Amino acid sequence: MENYSTRLAKIQDWMTEEGISLLMLEDTEGRRDKNIRWLTGHPGDALLFITQEEVPSRKINSKAILAAWDINLAKLYAGLSPVMIAAYNDFGRQPIKAIAAALQLFKIPSGSKIEIPSVTPYPSFLDYVGELSGYDILCRNNGANVELDKLRAVKDEEEIADIRKAADITNELIDLLEKNVREEKIKTEADAALFIEIEARKRGCEGTSFETLAAGSFRSFAIHAFPAWTNFPFGEKGLSILDFGVKYNGYCTDVTLTFARDLNPKQERIVNLVEKAAKLATAMAHNETPAKDIAAAVDTFFAKSKKEMPHGLGHGIGLQEHEYPVIRNRSDNEWVLKPGMIFTIEPGLYDTLLGGCRLENDILITEKGQEILTTARIIRL
Amino acid sequence: MENYSTRLAKIQDWMTEEGISLLMLEDTEGRRDKNIRWLTGHPGDALLFITQEEVPSRKINSKAILAAWDINLAKLYAGLSPVMIAAYNDFGRQPIKAIAAALQLFKIPSGSKIEIPSVTPYPSFLDYVGELSGYDILCRNNGANVELDKLRAVKDEEEIADIRKAADITNELIDLLEKNVREEKIKTEADAALFIEIEARKRGCEGTSFETLAAGSFRSFAIHAFPAWTNFPFGEKGLSILDFGVKYNGYCTDVTLTFARDLNPKQERIVNLVEKAAKLATAMAHNETPAKDIAAAVDTFFAKSKKEMPHGLGHGIGLQEHEYPVIRNRSDNEWVLKPGMIFTIEPGLYDTLLGGCRLENDILITEKGQEILTTARIIRL
Repeated sequence: MENYSTRLAKIQDWMTEEGISLLMLEDTEGRRDKNIRWLTGHPGDALLFITQEEVPSRKINSKAILAAWDINLAKLYAGLSPVMIAAYNDFGRQPIKAIAAALQLFKIPSGSKIEIPSVTPYPSFLDYVGELSGYDILCRNNGANVELDKLRAVKDEEEIADIRKAADITNELIDLLEKNVREEKIKTEADAALFIEIEARKRGCEGTSFETLAAGSFRSFAIHAFPAWTNFPFGEKGLSILDFGVKYNGYCTDVTLTFARDLNPKQERIVNLVEKAAKLATAMAHNETPAKDIAAAVDTFFAKSKKEMPHGLGHGIGLQEHEYPVIRNRSDNEWVLKPGMIFTIEPGLYDTLLGGCRLENDILITEKGQEILTTARIIRL
Repeated sequence: MENYSTRLAKIQDWMTEEGISLLMLEDTEGRRDKNIRWLTGHPGDALLFITQEEVPSRKINSKAILAAWDINLAKLYAGLSPVMIAAYNDFGRQPIKAIAAALQLFKIPSGSKIEIPSVTPYPSFLDYVGELSGYDILCRNNGANVELDKLRAVKDEEEIADIRKAADITNELIDLLEKNVREEKIKTEADAALFIEIEARKRGCEGTSFETLAAGSFRSFAIHAFPAWTNFPFGEKGLSILDFGVKYNGYCTDVTLTFARDLNPKQERIVNLVEKAAKLATAMAHNETPAKDIAAAVDTFFAKSKKEMPHGLGHGIGLQEHEYPVIRNRSDNEWVLKPGMIFTIEPGLYDTLLGGCRLENDILITEKGQEILTTARIIRL
């Protein structure tokens, strides 16, 4: 795929500006990094080493080496990318040993700048510095992996096409979920969650974006119900929340429906406030709008009714279910919306006695305004 | 629950020995830590602050504060533990602000030792040191969270009872899976995965321990199939792998079955080697055995037949699907088996043309020997 080369070139240009000779990315348990999939297609459990200059050598014929836990899987998924595929087993099965091997293979002279992931724990950082003496080891909040995260906030055409496809499937499922709850074919949280699992895959999805949260009315007070779903009733009297997404070709949607039945006036009020907040926020989502302003407007709107939302307004979606841009009312949030950004807007209010209500849709920023990709809604039963 | 107090006391004793005045644990996205659940019952998204001495104060009446993202959920799950429950919102929604607040609440004098999680990224560590000047900030490979991980490697009676219950449910599902595959009620990977999801919850489980890996014969060559399961056939000619676990009261099982149909001699050989390796390893699992020796014996056994296993032999299970002890053939693996340890033994061999075979069971070490808690097996169709 041509995009892999384009993406690799972007980060290599950045490396040149920063004077970095070798970059290591890590996608392992506890330190997941979707940048490796974005750059190569490989879905997980690997290290990726990137350099700027090709080294003419019999052993290596690329500017990037993917050291994969499962080499067979890597050949299947990263075969179209311009990286050299190697077995993690041959790299000592430890990042520090692997980076030492990569330095040798790429013939990188001592004194060079080597960047490791910004999430590298402090004690491990000390180990890197100790083991790779002679090199200048960088581990920075604004390092290469964060630069890649930021690049990924604006989607290219291929990515937008994948998310559109995921959104189309999501919307089909939303209609079917509404129909099946109305017809009482879906009666429990488990019915709803399993319906999504199977129907998403029937339509070609890799799976769901995250564990579906299905919370009937007596559990919907929690922001994220625990356990995620059970055999308890769903869609009965009160407010039931269904938070789910599907993953197509790696790309996620993330939506939340609220099902409302026989509400009392206090519950009606919550639902109306959430619907109005969603409308207000979506209307504000335009090219060049500071994301913080939208979240602040929703907080102010709720505060007028003496309500408080216990979570952020939204987040970017893409290869991860949570990624940049940040859509929160926090002083350090400097994100400004740009065409190609795709993110959720998900106002919600929660009460231990009344239950919870959240309405979440996925928005694409365009040159002219915004496009609401998904059709999540409050469903009045 | 009495155990929460006992566990808290254990880590407080350790803090006394180490001279630590305040300990912070963090269970957030990207930095999951089951120690908070082990110490309080709260299942996720929280910070936990632990000190050694109670501070008589109107504001605080405990030696530990749980700052939870969802305070309602925390009250439900951590209500029986001796910690004080607070809203993360009131702690500035940032670990650094929260730790500063905790230092004030507990009246901890400057110069004191404060321990933060060993997984704290190097750039964040610098921020902590900068913000909390006057305190001695510790971030160590052998810090408190790792000490807790090590304590958790030996299960107490209540934990063993939960894992036994999870194992009983797992074994019931194994029998039903065999029956349903034989009777062709389970024909696809999706059939198998969804059967487990629903039947586990019917039996009172929180859910599965991890996303079920169901790989029909043409995908079983991968150690961990990607995607985890699809609508492709399962249990057809060749080798199909089913790797799953259930979670009961937070405690995980982890087993792998291989379904074998109409094998050729090369496939038969792989299956026989894996079965023999499992037998050999299990027989070696006794009190005081170094875990490395077992893994080394399996590597040697496979090497005699010119085969290589591309992953470790096993891992502890408990609140996490992967925890201590480490059952790997690595020079730095110093784990020695003790009564109360529960772990997997999971030899496997994989070939792009022949497919893969893995056999994984969960073992409890007792005073006298070992108990195989689960009944995973090679199922010849």
